Amino acid sequence: MNTSTLANQNQFSKKKYAWSGRFSEPVSELVKNYTASLKFDKRLAHCDIQGSLAHAEMLSTQNIISIEDLRNIEKGLNQIILEINNDTFSWKIDFEDVHLNIENRLIELIGDAGKKLHTARSRNDQIATDMRLWIRDEIDDLTNLLNKLLCVLANLSLEHADVIMPGFTHLQVAQPITFGHHLLAYAEMFKRDIYRFKDCRKHMNYLPLGSAALAGTSFPIDRYRVAKNLGFDGVCQNSIDAISDRDFIIEFCAVASIIMTHLSRFSEELIMWLNPQVNFIDIEDQFCTGSSIMPQKKNPDVPELARGKTGRVYGHLISILTVMKSQPLAYNKDNQEDKEGLFDTVDTIRSTLIVFTKMMQCIKPKSYNMRLAALKNFSTATDFADYLVKKGLPFRDAHEIVSKVVYDCEKRGCGLEDLTKDEMKKYHSKIDDDVRNILTLEGSIFSRNHVGGTSPERVREEAKAILKQHYSVDT
Amino acid sequence: MNTSTLANQNQFSKKKYAWSGRFSEPVSELVKNYTASLKFDKRLAHCDIQGSLAHAEMLSTQNIISIEDLRNIEKGLNQIILEINNDTFSWKIDFEDVHLNIENRLIELIGDAGKKLHTARSRNDQIATDMRLWIRDEIDDLTNLLNKLLCVLANLSLEHADVIMPGFTHLQVAQPITFGHHLLAYAEMFKRDIYRFKDCRKHMNYLPLGSAALAGTSFPIDRYRVAKNLGFDGVCQNSIDAISDRDFIIEFCAVASIIMTHLSRFSEELIMWLNPQVNFIDIEDQFCTGSSIMPQKKNPDVPELARGKTGRVYGHLISILTVMKSQPLAYNKDNQEDKEGLFDTVDTIRSTLIVFTKMMQCIKPKSYNMRLAALKNFSTATDFADYLVKKGLPFRDAHEIVSKVVYDCEKRGCGLEDLTKDEMKKYHSKIDDDVRNILTLEGSIFSRNHVGGTSPERVREEAKAILKQHYSVDT
Amino acid sequence: MNTSTLANQNQFSKKKYAWSGRFSEPVSELVKNYTASLKFDKRLAHCDIQGSLAHAEMLSTQNIISIEDLRNIEKGLNQIILEINNDTFSWKIDFEDVHLNIENRLIELIGDAGKKLHTARSRNDQIATDMRLWIRDEIDDLTNLLNKLLCVLANLSLEHADVIMPGFTHLQVAQPITFGHHLLAYAEMFKRDIYRFKDCRKHMNYLPLGSAALAGTSFPIDRYRVAKNLGFDGVCQNSIDAISDRDFIIEFCAVASIIMTHLSRFSEELIMWLNPQVNFIDIEDQFCTGSSIMPQKKNPDVPELARGKTGRVYGHLISILTVMKSQPLAYNKDNQEDKEGLFDTVDTIRSTLIVFTKMMQCIKPKSYNMRLAALKNFSTATDFADYLVKKGLPFRDAHEIVSKVVYDCEKRGCGLEDLTKDEMKKYHSKIDDDVRNILTLEGSIFSRNHVGGTSPERVREEAKAILKQHYSVDT
Amino acid sequence: MNTSTLANQNQFSKKKYAWSGRFSEPVSELVKNYTASLKFDKRLAHCDIQGSLAHAEMLSTQNIISIEDLRNIEKGLNQIILEINNDTFSWKIDFEDVHLNIENRLIELIGDAGKKLHTARSRNDQIATDMRLWIRDEIDDLTNLLNKLLCVLANLSLEHADVIMPGFTHLQVAQPITFGHHLLAYAEMFKRDIYRFKDCRKHMNYLPLGSAALAGTSFPIDRYRVAKNLGFDGVCQNSIDAISDRDFIIEFCAVASIIMTHLSRFSEELIMWLNPQVNFIDIEDQFCTGSSIMPQKKNPDVPELARGKTGRVYGHLISILTVMKSQPLAYNKDNQEDKEGLFDTVDTIRSTLIVFTKMMQCIKPKSYNMRLAALKNFSTATDFADYLVKKGLPFRDAHEIVSKVVYDCEKRGCGLEDLTKDEMKKYHSKIDDDVRNILTLEGSIFSRNHVGGTSPERVREEAKAILKQHYSVDT
Repeated sequence: MNTSTLANQNQFSKKKYAWSGRFSEPVSELVKNYTASLKFDKRLAHCDIQGSLAHAEMLSTQNIISIEDLRNIEKGLNQIILEINNDTFSWKIDFEDVHLNIENRLIELIGDAGKKLHTARSRNDQIATDMRLWIRDEIDDLTNLLNKLLCVLANLSLEHADVIMPGFTHLQVAQPITFGHHLLAYAEMFKRDIYRFKDCRKHMNYLPLGSAALAGTSFPIDRYRVAKNLGFDGVCQNSIDAISDRDFIIEFCAVASIIMTHLSRFSEELIMWLNPQVNFIDIEDQFCTGSSIMPQKKNPDVPELARGKTGRVYGHLISILTVMKSQPLAYNKDNQEDKEGLFDTVDTIRSTLIVFTKMMQCIKPKSYNMRLAALKNFSTATDFADYLVKKGLPFRDAHEIVSKVVYDCEKRGCGLEDLTKDEMKKYHSKIDDDVRNILTLEGSIFSRNHVGGTSPERVREEAKAILKQHYSVDT
Repeated sequence: MNTSTLANQNQFSKKKYAWSGRFSEPVSELVKNYTASLKFDKRLAHCDIQGSLAHAEMLSTQNIISIEDLRNIEKGLNQIILEINNDTFSWKIDFEDVHLNIENRLIELIGDAGKKLHTARSRNDQIATDMRLWIRDEIDDLTNLLNKLLCVLANLSLEHADVIMPGFTHLQVAQPITFGHHLLAYAEMFKRDIYRFKDCRKHMNYLPLGSAALAGTSFPIDRYRVAKNLGFDGVCQNSIDAISDRDFIIEFCAVASIIMTHLSRFSEELIMWLNPQVNFIDIEDQFCTGSSIMPQKKNPDVPELARGKTGRVYGHLISILTVMKSQPLAYNKDNQEDKEGLFDTVDTIRSTLIVFTKMMQCIKPKSYNMRLAALKNFSTATDFADYLVKKGLPFRDAHEIVSKVVYDCEKRGCGLEDLTKDEMKKYHSKIDDDVRNILTLEGSIFSRNHVGGTSPERVREEAKAILKQHYSVDT
Repeated sequence: MNTSTLANQNQFSKKKYAWSGRFSEPVSELVKNYTASLKFDKRLAHCDIQGSLAHAEMLSTQNIISIEDLRNIEKGLNQIILEINNDTFSWKIDFEDVHLNIENRLIELIGDAGKKLHTARSRNDQIATDMRLWIRDEIDDLTNLLNKLLCVLANLSLEHADVIMPGFTHLQVAQPITFGHHLLAYAEMFKRDIYRFKDCRKHMNYLPLGSAALAGTSFPIDRYRVAKNLGFDGVCQNSIDAISDRDFIIEFCAVASIIMTHLSRFSEELIMWLNPQVNFIDIEDQFCTGSSIMPQKKNPDVPELARGKTGRVYGHLISILTVMKSQPLAYNKDNQEDKEGLFDTVDTIRSTLIVFTKMMQCIKPKSYNMRLAALKNFSTATDFADYLVKKGLPFRDAHEIVSKVVYDCEKRGCGLEDLTKDEMKKYHSKIDDDVRNILTLEGSIFSRNHVGGTSPERVREEAKAILKQHYSVDT
Repeated sequence: MNTSTLANQNQFSKKKYAWSGRFSEPVSELVKNYTASLKFDKRLAHCDIQGSLAHAEMLSTQNIISIEDLRNIEKGLNQIILEINNDTFSWKIDFEDVHLNIENRLIELIGDAGKKLHTARSRNDQIATDMRLWIRDEIDDLTNLLNKLLCVLANLSLEHADVIMPGFTHLQVAQPITFGHHLLAYAEMFKRDIYRFKDCRKHMNYLPLGSAALAGTSFPIDRYRVAKNLGFDGVCQNSIDAISDRDFIIEFCAVASIIMTHLSRFSEELIMWLNPQVNFIDIEDQFCTGSSIMPQKKNPDVPELARGKTGRVYGHLISILTVMKSQPLAYNKDNQEDKEGLFDTVDTIRSTLIVFTKMMQCIKPKSYNMRLAALKNFSTATDFADYLVKKGLPFRDAHEIVSKVVYDCEKRGCGLEDLTKDEMKKYHSKIDDDVRNILTLEGSIFSRNHVGGTSPERVREEAKAILKQHYSVDT
């Protein structure tokens, strides 16, 4: 066989695979369907082309390919972008994955120059680069969504900074708090999520390209140039690690799991607040659905589903950890399993943040019911104990006295405020008329005026700080 | 407003939702897309119709609907089956899920009779029934696949019952075993998986239908009739539990996780056996793929991917557990999250079993390499110790003596069989010429002839037993 | 060196390890502490001795050891049981694990006969046997605890079969149910857990002993005799599988996870019912704790902690799955990690079942509050729709009419029962005086009288069936 | 009853609980054992006291307690530290947890001043503070251990920068790499782990104290003063979030899971390298153990166990996520379950890092075996293709030609280097004598001399950079 003839043929059109020269038997349809990743990795097409463009530009600068080849590659890839955007690109499972589909089309479009694009790289460093580019974009987008939710919460807090509700611990009435203060607790969580995303982005913003299959390449490449062009902070320092590392996916999934934890807690509370016995808030009909059998039902489907979706995000975290556990270096096919779970994690976080943010804008507190609930169950008993401490008693003794008062009130079926001054005095001689002020809900709320405390003034301060800090992003 | 007019209208065509009469505001597009399950639950269409047919038949027998209504419902549902099979059914996300899509189409097709189908049931007991019918079918199918794999392994074992390889513990050479014996270890695992599926099927084979929304129904239904018609072993004894229970999904996912554990162990070994340093087996090209950069590569993609897919199945198990954790009774929207992970679990197990079975049929042991590896590293040292015990030494003393012999051989760089009789005798006077027979690979293998042992005779016996027991299913 | 001298020495006293003859360097303290399992596996001591006794009896019957050796071994092991029970046994981390500690002590006590016990076995099949014996006992014990809880629930259900409460779906009022019916939903779950334990026990009740290191043994053992003596249903059919299989631990942890799922759901409801806004039940002070700062607090610590402990059981399930994922055959040290999680799982399930059962005995429903809650929120709207169906309307039309009525009532701020007959009639001409009966809570409850339904009669029937079936075990 | 008498009594000595005044019935022993956390949380004693000292100092500065009270509290707490260090402190399960044990002892020691310590705080903010202090210390310690491991790897890499081994992808020979380069791949992973710990520490380094039960306190506290004294970067901005947040534990467990992923991969490779067929390294006897039955065995227990311990760390991550999933605000008893898994995670990471570092210091590569393995399987085929590209062929065509050469060589059973110039030329006319240099292992290695590449020069450069950067910590 004349090998120069062979070299002139398009490997793709004949063999269908970029690696088939050494095989005596084609991959069976069954195996092809089992192993092909095209179904899901075509989602990376834009990042793949973005990486190829930067790679080709460097190859040309380094005189590994000619400037003319570069122009052709750029023209071809831009044409492919158009085809993909217009949905006229013909994806073929025979070409296994997004990379070979695009490379094959490029060769169809521009011939020999297309065959040169894969010089000095491998699919191993290519996919690692694609994934980092993709996640980086998603982090930026999700951060924006978190900022929006933060602003909605801050605005709600400003509006309802004076609405008093019972604060619960163990789902028992603990102390009066403000609704604004409660909402800002969630704002704190989402603020931390933003910082976590930021650090996750920072940790992974290094370029794998140039690592080739696993050992680097014999071509005189300039990795820093590619890194700069693609917006990376630097290059991966070890080629073997660069192509086998999936830390950034685990880390992303861990941050996502924490976000879902926060949303599941918020959802749990919204569902409880909408329960007719609790009845603390109103939610617009558009976030609820009905029943196919019970004509009266109005169900808070959105927070319930958000709570349920926590499961899938935790699951994806465990999946990727399991995939990576005890994998020998460097690249193994197991790694192909890093994508679907990640994609679904991003989609879940995004859709949930969007719908949650919209829903929160439509939440209305029922301040009368909240106040009523706060008035019950001795919510100012701690203030009573603090009062005694300020009168000179050690806290432990004050706590014990108030415990006794509560015990007696409960037996009599009355509240602390129902006791006469004389009845009060029997518990301790230092109790005086001024105790009445501290036993009110407002007395309790306003006294907690330090940073982090529940007083309306502090709530407004913190809400404004959030709006100021997270404003610019929310455009 | 004239309500009799209202009653004559088709609720679906006007309001788009089975539950919308009580709502003043439609669900937004955003929320609809977030909450609709149609995208994935339409996979349950056939089970849904199967359940509806049995339900309607019972309603008619109990005189809750007329025989004429029943005939119309049957005609309509059969028409819908045709439309679905021919892909002409028009799925509409406006109707939320598979149930309402089918019910709406039924009303379109047959009018008032269609509006009667949902009498005495709710989507809560309907979906619980659909899911059980669906999983039951899948278990039967997957059990068949496991049986096929078992038979392939048993045939391989028969064929290679005499091929000797090193048995590893801690990936160190332990004792000689036969390749057939090693393969049958996996057969044992898959046998257990079959039994687990069988019990999982048994635990869930009870009818939820008749539980309606959660409390049962006021219509004089006959649940046992429906159960019998649908092949259930009985009816769920408590309506609240019947509609909130998802144990059967967790249990299925747990069995699936164990199956993937087995396949991941098998894959790990295949990959190692294909490593050029180990080189114990050959695998056909069709189960391998190449490299886009390294022209010489032939990679065992199938077992690697199977090993990687373990992650997603473990992940789905954690997902459904998380979804159910601390959900209050009875039905909550969280439960909608029970489907996608389950479907993917079934698809993963199925495709992996199919491709694995086909691949195993093409595995060829390299018996020469295996034998060579078994000859090294003192694999018959235990036989040596046993020999001394049979000569009257306590096992612990025998073990200690052989340890010393191994230590000295290793220093000298020779094997046990290289020692002269006199050298041997120095370690213990009872060592005699007959020790040579027990130090051979064959001596070791054939001596382990009890049930469960590695001798070729036992391997054949067990392989035949498997072929006999699992034959009938494999047609 | 004179090896017959060596053979006469006690290997343990000199070398500290059963395997040290071939090593030139002792294991460092650091490594010893890292790898020793004694700290936790000594919990298996009784099972280990039980297995050793059966093994020795068989060795003697098969003439592998003498009857005198057997008697000595029995005497020695019984002595060791006493020492362990009296806490005078001297555990030594130098002997790594429970097996070597016991064997070493046995040799101290009885000399040469003790050195013969390990004939024809390895720690690999020994630990596999110990674990199965141990779990089997625990399953029996935990099944008993589940039976007790079942009986407590059945008795409570009998007592409160007529107490009406609102049934919730989506935490919104759905339909009236009975408290007894609600409790029996949990009884169903625990019944399934019992069946799952039963099958888990059945799957693993096969004897690994005789598999030795991995390939079986050259001694003429009788595995069926040992199996029978230890109460196993048969012997493991493949020695390699027998020593590497940990399916039974995964399966146990999966069943345990489902039990915790049930307990976490129950806990969630108890906590909600104790919330002052809901206030459905009373719980005794002994199951609550207070606050170090808030003198009035009474917190439902027990159900909260039970709910929280779900996390650790799920975690242990993932741990053991991760340990087994892609482990090559046969035994690897990774397997040592199968114990601590399992032990903690058993301890968690046991203590939680015990405290939960005791707590349930002290639960008192507040039937007045429950009834009040059921009266609100149109809980009988489904009955209203069913009424119209019985008057001849198709269900979908009936559902739509009632939706409209609910919508209007809600606007007017009244209940269904507040409408006059004439107002009713305006919605449909077939509505008559008899609708009033079906709109009451009792009307709704009593009409759901089929198997699985919420009517008091059915609840009593099912509660009695449970008491009958699970009585004998609960002694 | 005379309440001033009551106030003078020591609440602890009489009632045993800090919250018992309002209870009519003591907690049962059963419940006490179920709910008490003392068994594990006493590990936090030093952090608890550290926090109390800073709190008391601030109370005194703010004139909430007197300077004399402060002196007494300091004296008492220092005394308690001594007692704990000397193991003479009498822990009592009756006092539930570490906080009440210490407070009770303080009151015993110093009387009324001790009763004042709990002013303006709750156990809710106290435990949140203790946990953060504790984890912060552990992160610093674990970071040090990671630095040590890094330095060991860097030194090994320096030493073996020229040792050539086969680089694997898919466990098939891919390209020649250096052993030093391979080790530095792990160094990269541990470097990222250090950065992740650093950010995790930064995210959580805010003071919860001052949040009291959940709403803040009515006392004029100075939270910034306490934060500064305890080394926090700031204070938590929302009191409700501060006491319910456990993000920092999830984040820590996620970082720990990634570390274990890295160690499990390293372990997998060490175990494989020690397999007699591969035989790439030697490991000292002290890191191995033997077999109770097979006298010749030397098992790599340490890496196997490290690999297995990955399971428990993944499990703890899932546990804490499950605990937090959908917990309503603010504090619930579920949170008590945040400790044991965390403690075990820290202990596992620490002991594994220590033993791993020590083991790595004793690893010796068998360079002869490594080289031999690299020579086989056409490991320089990529270099051959690159050679053709440099001669002017497009990469895809070059790849195809080399595939064909490999295919033919494999059939003939020879290597690329065995072909004559003429045989070579038949594949392509541009192949010349100079191809021989690039087909050697050294040719391949040295040509990959860009940043991240496998050439010895680059390996040394990177190893030195690591030693420079991580030196100062490793003291």
